[in-house]
Amino acid sequence: MSLKAISAKDAASLDKDLMDMGGWSLDQLMELAGLSVSQAVWRVHPLSSGKNILVVCGPGNNGGDGLVAARHLAQYGYKPSVFYPKQGKNELYQRLKTQLENLSVPFITDFSAALNSTDFLVDAIFGFSFGGPLRDPFGSIVSQIESASVSVLSVDAPSSWDIQSGPPKEGPGAKFMPAALISLTAPKPCVKFYRGRHFIGGRFLSKDITDKYGIDSPPYPGIDQVMEVGVDAEGRL
Amino acid sequence: MSLKAISAKDAASLDKDLMDMGGWSLDQLMELAGLSVSQAVWRVHPLSSGKNILVVCGPGNNGGDGLVAARHLAQYGYKPSVFYPKQGKNELYQRLKTQLENLSVPFITDFSAALNSTDFLVDAIFGFSFGGPLRDPFGSIVSQIESASVSVLSVDAPSSWDIQSGPPKEGPGAKFMPAALISLTAPKPCVKFYRGRHFIGGRFLSKDITDKYGIDSPPYPGIDQVMEVGVDAEGRL
Repeated sequence: MSLKAISAKDAASLDKDLMDMGGWSLDQLMELAGLSVSQAVWRVHPLSSGKNILVVCGPGNNGGDGLVAARHLAQYGYKPSVFYPKQGKNELYQRLKTQLENLSVPFITDFSAALNSTDFLVDAIFGFSFGGPLRDPFGSIVSQIESASVSVLSVDAPSSWDIQSGPPKEGPGAKFMPAALISLTAPKPCVKFYRGRHFIGGRFLSKDITDKYGIDSPPYPGIDQVMEVGVDAEGRL
Repeated sequence: MSLKAISAKDAASLDKDLMDMGGWSLDQLMELAGLSVSQAVWRVHPLSSGKNILVVCGPGNNGGDGLVAARHLAQYGYKPSVFYPKQGKNELYQRLKTQLENLSVPFITDFSAALNSTDFLVDAIFGFSFGGPLRDPFGSIVSQIESASVSVLSVDAPSSWDIQSGPPKEGPGAKFMPAALISLTAPKPCVKFYRGRHFIGGRFLSKDITDKYGIDSPPYPGIDQVMEVGVDAEGRL
């Protein structure tokens, strides 16, 4: 299947359109984005593969998607824990944190220990708005994830990758290739450097939006909020 | 399976707790409630049974759940239309309406014609906060639904039913028995007068809430947002 990629600038503009003109709140968009992330985890790492999932959240909306995903994963029967070293200021993030605390989802502080004992990791550190470079503590975090043997699902982009030009030439992330990636609303250009299982999520676009940005609405099956789309050897979708 | 019912007063208090202390916004709760409604429709009335679905929305949050459900149904490939004769004042309802308009979901005005041509109907008129009596135009609407041969899914309660004591003794709704009912978060007492397919939705409660209200968190299978629970001949769950 052919799915067009969308630049970071267009992805930001699309989000703005959804909220300014489309009637969407960030609460709604993040709920459906995080739900699609949780459904991708369910496919890549079913409950029988181990219940412990470490969700690493960055300070922005990518991290918020991770918080929502962690909540749904807890409802599915997983045992998620969250590492959230730089909490964003938006009051929504605080509310998502409260929701997780009420489900007894732990917010861990010893990342290395958590990384060594988890069955799966969700990388919700940075998404399409990442402009680099990786600031502390995220350089060290990405290096540790990269060196660990744990299977990873990245949300929107592998964290540390440039949204346009892909993995950094050197340093943290240069060899980061998550087992799975979920692109939200549309793939980003860096997907052409990606090899692994590829999902698309964000089943809420209308035709005026897909037309404006020249992107595709994938044929999501049934009531699924996520669809596996794959990439070929040249990184084409 | 045994699922405890919750009074209208406790259901209102539970919603308030979720928002005041649980960190939830109405946008989030309504998104997940409406999503569960759409998943119940998918079970009761698959696409192959006819794509035309008329969603009748009341002025409050039950109607809002219907608007969200209509949006998801449009994404699934149904052709929903919405009858929304008394639009609520909350700005969220206006935004949900905008989202539907952007998906080209029609807001119809000729209810009788729409009722005669639809394959299925979602009754999102009144939920647990209904205190009766049915004011115009809803008396006439319920009468028409009751007399029509179309299959109906009611959201939270069959509209016109008293939440405690069930169907009215006479007048509109006295013989209203929808083919399906979805209870949100927990069944309401009137479910004991109900005979038909019964679902539960609202997979977002935490243990502090289920403990406080003495209700059950049903064993939702997999990643489903809805579960069929059934009722026996005495109306027991």
